[in-house]
Amino acid sequence: MQTKTEESPTRERKRGDRIKVGVVGATGMVGQRFVQLLSDHPWFELTAVAASSSSAGKSYKEAVDWKVSPEIPQKARELTVGESAPPLDCELVFSSLPGSVAGEVEEEFARAGYPLFSNASSHRMDRLIPLVIPEVNPDHLGLIEGQKEERGWSGFIVNNPNCSAVGLTMVLKPLQIRFGLEKVMVVTQQALSGAGYPGEASLDMVGNVLPSISGEEEKLATEPLKMLGSLREGGIERAEIAISPQCSRVNVADGHLETISFALKKEVGLEDVKRSFSSFRPETEKLDLPSSPKKALVLLEGDDRPQPRLDVERGAGMSTSIGRVRECPVLDYKLVLLSHNTIRGAAGGSLLNAELAWRRGYLND
Amino acid sequence: MQTKTEESPTRERKRGDRIKVGVVGATGMVGQRFVQLLSDHPWFELTAVAASSSSAGKSYKEAVDWKVSPEIPQKARELTVGESAPPLDCELVFSSLPGSVAGEVEEEFARAGYPLFSNASSHRMDRLIPLVIPEVNPDHLGLIEGQKEERGWSGFIVNNPNCSAVGLTMVLKPLQIRFGLEKVMVVTQQALSGAGYPGEASLDMVGNVLPSISGEEEKLATEPLKMLGSLREGGIERAEIAISPQCSRVNVADGHLETISFALKKEVGLEDVKRSFSSFRPETEKLDLPSSPKKALVLLEGDDRPQPRLDVERGAGMSTSIGRVRECPVLDYKLVLLSHNTIRGAAGGSLLNAELAWRRGYLND
Amino acid sequence: MQTKTEESPTRERKRGDRIKVGVVGATGMVGQRFVQLLSDHPWFELTAVAASSSSAGKSYKEAVDWKVSPEIPQKARELTVGESAPPLDCELVFSSLPGSVAGEVEEEFARAGYPLFSNASSHRMDRLIPLVIPEVNPDHLGLIEGQKEERGWSGFIVNNPNCSAVGLTMVLKPLQIRFGLEKVMVVTQQALSGAGYPGEASLDMVGNVLPSISGEEEKLATEPLKMLGSLREGGIERAEIAISPQCSRVNVADGHLETISFALKKEVGLEDVKRSFSSFRPETEKLDLPSSPKKALVLLEGDDRPQPRLDVERGAGMSTSIGRVRECPVLDYKLVLLSHNTIRGAAGGSLLNAELAWRRGYLND
Amino acid sequence: MQTKTEESPTRERKRGDRIKVGVVGATGMVGQRFVQLLSDHPWFELTAVAASSSSAGKSYKEAVDWKVSPEIPQKARELTVGESAPPLDCELVFSSLPGSVAGEVEEEFARAGYPLFSNASSHRMDRLIPLVIPEVNPDHLGLIEGQKEERGWSGFIVNNPNCSAVGLTMVLKPLQIRFGLEKVMVVTQQALSGAGYPGEASLDMVGNVLPSISGEEEKLATEPLKMLGSLREGGIERAEIAISPQCSRVNVADGHLETISFALKKEVGLEDVKRSFSSFRPETEKLDLPSSPKKALVLLEGDDRPQPRLDVERGAGMSTSIGRVRECPVLDYKLVLLSHNTIRGAAGGSLLNAELAWRRGYLND
Repeated sequence: MQTKTEESPTRERKRGDRIKVGVVGATGMVGQRFVQLLSDHPWFELTAVAASSSSAGKSYKEAVDWKVSPEIPQKARELTVGESAPPLDCELVFSSLPGSVAGEVEEEFARAGYPLFSNASSHRMDRLIPLVIPEVNPDHLGLIEGQKEERGWSGFIVNNPNCSAVGLTMVLKPLQIRFGLEKVMVVTQQALSGAGYPGEASLDMVGNVLPSISGEEEKLATEPLKMLGSLREGGIERAEIAISPQCSRVNVADGHLETISFALKKEVGLEDVKRSFSSFRPETEKLDLPSSPKKALVLLEGDDRPQPRLDVERGAGMSTSIGRVRECPVLDYKLVLLSHNTIRGAAGGSLLNAELAWRRGYLND
Repeated sequence: MQTKTEESPTRERKRGDRIKVGVVGATGMVGQRFVQLLSDHPWFELTAVAASSSSAGKSYKEAVDWKVSPEIPQKARELTVGESAPPLDCELVFSSLPGSVAGEVEEEFARAGYPLFSNASSHRMDRLIPLVIPEVNPDHLGLIEGQKEERGWSGFIVNNPNCSAVGLTMVLKPLQIRFGLEKVMVVTQQALSGAGYPGEASLDMVGNVLPSISGEEEKLATEPLKMLGSLREGGIERAEIAISPQCSRVNVADGHLETISFALKKEVGLEDVKRSFSSFRPETEKLDLPSSPKKALVLLEGDDRPQPRLDVERGAGMSTSIGRVRECPVLDYKLVLLSHNTIRGAAGGSLLNAELAWRRGYLND
Repeated sequence: MQTKTEESPTRERKRGDRIKVGVVGATGMVGQRFVQLLSDHPWFELTAVAASSSSAGKSYKEAVDWKVSPEIPQKARELTVGESAPPLDCELVFSSLPGSVAGEVEEEFARAGYPLFSNASSHRMDRLIPLVIPEVNPDHLGLIEGQKEERGWSGFIVNNPNCSAVGLTMVLKPLQIRFGLEKVMVVTQQALSGAGYPGEASLDMVGNVLPSISGEEEKLATEPLKMLGSLREGGIERAEIAISPQCSRVNVADGHLETISFALKKEVGLEDVKRSFSSFRPETEKLDLPSSPKKALVLLEGDDRPQPRLDVERGAGMSTSIGRVRECPVLDYKLVLLSHNTIRGAAGGSLLNAELAWRRGYLND
Repeated sequence: MQTKTEESPTRERKRGDRIKVGVVGATGMVGQRFVQLLSDHPWFELTAVAASSSSAGKSYKEAVDWKVSPEIPQKARELTVGESAPPLDCELVFSSLPGSVAGEVEEEFARAGYPLFSNASSHRMDRLIPLVIPEVNPDHLGLIEGQKEERGWSGFIVNNPNCSAVGLTMVLKPLQIRFGLEKVMVVTQQALSGAGYPGEASLDMVGNVLPSISGEEEKLATEPLKMLGSLREGGIERAEIAISPQCSRVNVADGHLETISFALKKEVGLEDVKRSFSSFRPETEKLDLPSSPKKALVLLEGDDRPQPRLDVERGAGMSTSIGRVRECPVLDYKLVLLSHNTIRGAAGGSLLNAELAWRRGYLND
């Protein structure tokens, strides 16, 4: 599969040219973020929303318990909620379905010819489905051709990773490229919105921390290895890095904070490590994608940063903040990172994947 | 220095026999805990409170902004607050002075003949001053004789460690004894009361996490090494363990949660590690100390434990809870621990040190 | 109905004499409080727990997601959870069933001969069922005889009020007796545990206030009128007071704070109002009931009290705290009150009702 | 004083024409909001910042502990912090000085010829100084002429009210105009940022509510009366309304929630009351002021609104949200309102006052 002729990155599609997109799982927390982020998108126009059958047939404003901003975007209010199955009145589908049902439904859409960009966990580790962060492994989109062929689909599926894996992988990428990575310890303090709605009970969170998140550590130990792996002969050869995660839930609305230590393959100085972050210029920056932040990684000064309250909105929620880079007496270096879990870690990440696919010509058939 | 004849552990001192004790720094958060814990103590009777000169001369109830329970204990209410300097109407002094003033004041008391049990940081790493957790290193009280001699004091100082170091050291002790310890990674989520009052601003904590605590990581990297070290020729030979701490502040009232990974010297199985905790029977259990919890270490089942809200009061705040013991792909094992920071980690820990000293005969001169 | 010969209040039943009691709805938040409060009760012995059929047959420790203290009480752990229907191995039943099922199940127990003390809302406004706070309207137990007769039950039902109504009614009682009451405005700030478990979603509560609680205002407008009403000819003549409630939910674990203004029938001074609280000596104080607090009403000095964190545990959660009593330019006076919603406002209140009934001889058949 | 010829409301001042403005008290919470809101203002250009002498001489980025957004606005970063005294390099001054120093400093600026728009409390009830909400009492600017004359100032002072008084007064205004107002009960649940920084201690707020706010109730009882009063013979005749406030602090970052009941002079229906809000069209709407929200009052459906988290940002923090309008059995009607305390209730309100003054010609000398 080679990339097709790119459109000029500077030419904006005209309004009338916008791609019609649908969101399945549109009433959940991540679905709401999709609807919000799509409300004024220069390339994509939201024309369809779908949810569980109990919502189907209602207007979106009736079906949703809107939580992510004061008002439901005007254009979405009157859309009729459809069933989560093809056909939908759109050319491209975003999925924020719960893991329990995503697997089958998403494949139906791919089979029916839709490019589908999923935030669900079902297909993330599927060997034919690219698990992508545009700044990290844009070339993994190369799996699409083989996926379509082998599965016999006319559409395809592209996945973004778990909300806790995005920030970590973003930070590991420049380290891997420059110095090689051997080991990573990561302790997360994850936000409430990562558990969906209603998510954790308020009684469990008031003045408290939950010391585990079901299923999260396995995702955090494996998804980065696929994304940091290499595209080889139509498959992904995983990176060989030992990742040891410990996940906790804290009483924060949005923003996963992660405290990490890592061992590198090369012996390098503290300034080299910092510079690898501050000078990180992913290829995708040249593509002028609408949801791409100006800086993928924001290196913060000040021992008290990043903080969820102050830093989660950096780059409109698409940047990863890094602070407290310093030596570690057990591994080599340690630091604290922060990433917005429902924007960069979910809806925004999926949207950026679709923008990348469009630029790379995967939506032009 | 040899231990003097112990009193029979089962004989309770009669009321009339109780040792008169004073608290300096009595109006702060830890000072209040001292006053609370001493309000019904079988061996110690609170007869003096001291604080900064702005409080001196007032009754305790006027001077204190009481925060740790609904009511100031009856006996403390009418005590007149004295200056933080000898003489005080007592035989033994507890100190919860702020680090900035503790150094000098505490030495004055020792010089004046008072046994002083301090929660302040000033003398913790002083080579002649025992830094003690009774379950971990009761023998370090052996430094007292040399301390008195070399400093020319008729009294002495015994310190308890930083609130974040207690739980960690309690958990490391059985590992060190049984298997030998090489490396420890520790990420803390520390409670608000650890910062004293007023401590962190509420605006910084609502829906937020602070990714650092000033000065804390250095304490956490060094104090355990002294406590896990060996008493040799009148000094402490520090344990050789690499500890890498990362400290954060979370919106929890009481209870420091710590997520740790560690590498052992011996290759052992998961069950061996768990058993080292569940079978930990420190010598001090036989001493029947009033503030000693029935179980120093409580090994919890259930992936969602320990939690500050549910577990911080175990053993009346004197037990350390351990959960989620499992293998670590980077070091050997990992787990989550919880310890009450103002009880075990401060006033209660200091009180237990005094009880130990009494049993060991250091207060009988 | 006349009170039967009372047992001497000073004689404690011997251990072997304790009444066997059961709890239906034993796995919920209020059910857990019942189990906790009964774990060391001098008169009652917990011998049966019942819950929904999904829990029936399991041991209590397997069935419950214990949240109210570190450990499930030893004696309750191995009790087998029964179905919520007679017969249960006990002489008296406490009910914390959800309102949706309580109505029918509770009547079954009464029909089957059990005295049942309910925290559920189903029967609170039933004209034959006493809605009781022992310090407020102990004489309403007089409804029992007629209830049994008219309904043809060999057992009976006694109710305690909604958690938000207890504190308010306690505070209104001395005002009503001394000065007569005309109007009451009340704005509540209610705790999370009042919504049961899981209750409110944590995402709705972090850094937020919910400005309403479904169904709560109606209860708060009517239940006090029944309790402050008079027992007349086998029924209750409701008090004629206009109560206007506004209820909100705040991010507090336990403790309902209520801000009230009221107009009295007599013109009285501020000190008279305060004295009516500080001198309130309900008849029940003489009955020496195990769950009765020493002071039903605690009048606090200090403009910053009561506070949930500092005052909710007063009287072991059975006292109502009052602060900020002052003149109101719209009605006559205003104040702030605080009451523990799952102890005094639920399980503890029901338990106290049973103790009252026992003292009054209603359990002696 | 007569209003001077207005500029055409549709003509925007060109960039080069912008009025140079300064902020005194620029490093505090409200000062930061001023700096943020001024960072891209079409009429005003921030050219000076001033603070206490300990900050004077530093760059703004060194002097401030920035808390209100991820980054200090670019243009403000390098401004040198001046002393809080004239002269400042600007034509107009905004003041968010603490009450303790505001009185004298603000008068110095007025004497020195600066129009000063203050958020401080010192002059709010001064009979010659207009206390203004543009939607409520724009005509009170008419006090300016007499103020200058009587005080002998070449500049002048205009005040905005206390953060808790803005939303209340906005909501009372249409009621007063249409129906006449007699009595108002108001219970507030105020946000942390209203106390400035550091404000309340986090230990006092975690899982807690503070039942009073020092000095707040007096402001809330009197400031609305001045704003709802009439400009008569160079002074304000206060409105005769009995207002009874009770203020509390809750663990919310931004947004004061207020629960009110009120008695009207006319007997009107519920729909009339609602319509008075939904049809409220203040004169200022025609003035096209940059900081004016499209709707001053937003009437929300849904019993669960307004909520701080969901509604505080309505109208970019300048709208007042109203919900739960319903009958009150004690007074006539009751409702819940929400207003952003540091935007509408402080910096944004002051800015809007300056915009009004500019439109009205008071800045054209």
